[in-house]
Amino acid sequence: MHTELTERFGIEYPIFGFTPSQHVAAAISRAGGLGVLGCVRFNDPDELDEVLEWMHENTDGKPFGVDVVMPAKIPTEGTQVDLAAMIPPEHKAFVERVLDDLGVPALPDGERVNAGVLGWLHSVARSHVDVAMAHADKYGQIKLIANALGSPPSDVIATSHEHGVAVAALAGAKDHALHHVEAGVDIVIAQGYEGGGHTGEVTSMVLWPELVDAVGHTAPVLAAGGVGSGRQMAAAIALGAQGVWMGTYWLTAAEYQLGVPEGHEGPSTVQQALLAASSRDTVRRRIYSGKPARLLKTRWTEAWDADGAPEPLPMPLQNILVSEAHARISASDDPGVVAMPAGQIVGRCNAITPVAELIADMVSEYEEATARMGKTLEA
Amino acid sequence: MHTELTERFGIEYPIFGFTPSQHVAAAISRAGGLGVLGCVRFNDPDELDEVLEWMHENTDGKPFGVDVVMPAKIPTEGTQVDLAAMIPPEHKAFVERVLDDLGVPALPDGERVNAGVLGWLHSVARSHVDVAMAHADKYGQIKLIANALGSPPSDVIATSHEHGVAVAALAGAKDHALHHVEAGVDIVIAQGYEGGGHTGEVTSMVLWPELVDAVGHTAPVLAAGGVGSGRQMAAAIALGAQGVWMGTYWLTAAEYQLGVPEGHEGPSTVQQALLAASSRDTVRRRIYSGKPARLLKTRWTEAWDADGAPEPLPMPLQNILVSEAHARISASDDPGVVAMPAGQIVGRCNAITPVAELIADMVSEYEEATARMGKTLEA
Repeated sequence: MHTELTERFGIEYPIFGFTPSQHVAAAISRAGGLGVLGCVRFNDPDELDEVLEWMHENTDGKPFGVDVVMPAKIPTEGTQVDLAAMIPPEHKAFVERVLDDLGVPALPDGERVNAGVLGWLHSVARSHVDVAMAHADKYGQIKLIANALGSPPSDVIATSHEHGVAVAALAGAKDHALHHVEAGVDIVIAQGYEGGGHTGEVTSMVLWPELVDAVGHTAPVLAAGGVGSGRQMAAAIALGAQGVWMGTYWLTAAEYQLGVPEGHEGPSTVQQALLAASSRDTVRRRIYSGKPARLLKTRWTEAWDADGAPEPLPMPLQNILVSEAHARISASDDPGVVAMPAGQIVGRCNAITPVAELIADMVSEYEEATARMGKTLEA
Repeated sequence: MHTELTERFGIEYPIFGFTPSQHVAAAISRAGGLGVLGCVRFNDPDELDEVLEWMHENTDGKPFGVDVVMPAKIPTEGTQVDLAAMIPPEHKAFVERVLDDLGVPALPDGERVNAGVLGWLHSVARSHVDVAMAHADKYGQIKLIANALGSPPSDVIATSHEHGVAVAALAGAKDHALHHVEAGVDIVIAQGYEGGGHTGEVTSMVLWPELVDAVGHTAPVLAAGGVGSGRQMAAAIALGAQGVWMGTYWLTAAEYQLGVPEGHEGPSTVQQALLAASSRDTVRRRIYSGKPARLLKTRWTEAWDADGAPEPLPMPLQNILVSEAHARISASDDPGVVAMPAGQIVGRCNAITPVAELIADMVSEYEEATARMGKTLEA
């Protein structure tokens, strides 16, 4: 396939795959797309460095990207202790009570809970940028840095460009897209309401062409939110996007093994939950991060909807509040109580499938859809 | 253009236009689409009869359709008095207070408020069906009857088929679509979350292909929710639909004159509100009918979101509660306080344009999008 973005990145298909799993990211790049490794889980920059080294060794020289999270409007600094002190005791008590009610066991003695997602603090996100730039220089494979919340700071954009790395940013509304472009962002990722994780209110069908019209002449638009088939990729191209950005759909890839204990056979607990979910089994709530994010609907999300549940805290406090809960939930091995960002396309995640097969199926379905459209215009 | 539905109805383009305005519906059919007249506003069947006669005289023999509303789960009968007695006094007081706060004047002395949307009662909807069938027999132009809520009763489906009229029904979820097809519905209208009026939670990007896969082999799918351009029609066809079903986009058609006083020049009050709205200026609330429906966000909808506002009543009570308010709002001539169903595509309603031009633009944009997709596959 040829679009502005396949040419720019020298990739076969305009399929950009966001994933926290290096195994999935590498498989996407190997299969002709562009794998984008989510960095927010790396509180320690050395760990990211090791994983990027692994990516280099497992991508046959193909390009890939990294995704960092630098929200525009949160405390940019603060230790865990400072921030933890800002969490009301009633919120802590609510979380404890819900976990008890849901039968989620405490962590084994001696196991420490990590600091929550410190990757959302600028100091940590900047260390991700530094590590990524060093890797871009070393191997020349890192070609894209994406920011999942707001425009990246101008010095990060400038630094990325100096290292030959394009900058992409997610936008859920026209104003955000215009702001990105003004800030120097190269590619706008238009993420509709149906997407997993942080989303706005406008759906992909309406948002994608709106952002193409607003910024497409300056910055190519990647279509995100609701993509999990070649027909949806065809819709993205029809609507004027230059490619697709997918997240949820890779969570049931065969290569996705995050959180799976050594020696585990078959789908992980989270994958079991994803495989069982329909397109109606997600909710968009502030309970994960403090900003509206679409999550798999489970007994955990329902507990926050119940009478008497507190309002979620602002970012980044909410994630610090629930970080131990997330760790306990992950360890508890119950598909009915996972805490997992997922888009409505989860309704199509119905089998554990290797990445290469997912991509090949998308491309052949894209070809079929294009041919089908051509036929509607024949005399 | 050729799809299963253009062939079936003998129309030039697979563009199905739902509108309460006979002027718009007739213009859509004249321009090569299929105009579908919304009947819910006709409390008196004789009035519908006259309007269908007008449609016959103004459509050059082209096919058109009618849309009735038969919700599956509401009291099927009841006089206005019975139902009005079920409305709590606090709700009435709230509505009065809000109208005062918003500066919406009372209706002129002697002007009676109608009975609310009695078209939502089965007895009234059935009278619409009877009138439509008589017209189908008389002129052979009525080719489609659509039901906006749930599957139509089986005898209505049987009667329609006897009169050579195809039956379509809106669905916002796979279960609803399967139920429709089982009930004998011929065409499923897959309406995404972004659509105006009653919608479910799943967006068009996800819902359309899901319903195509679920029922498309039996019943062609019309794509609804978020369509207001040829690119979106291209997305609909790419996703497997056999055509598009549009509502909001016709509200700023030049022919749309409902609620405009005699001698008024320029856009109506409602049109002014629609022209000013962006894609983010809608909300999905139960305040219009008792079921979740997407509306233009105005000071009226905001009043229902404020602290202390009551929960909306179930259908059909909520509409009876607000029917006088709607009449007062309509008469008050304030674009900031309209009560109007509208989808997110309202962000593209930026000019008053004749129907024929809207359709011609859609078709040429569809052709462009199809050509653009073909190019992505050239060597």
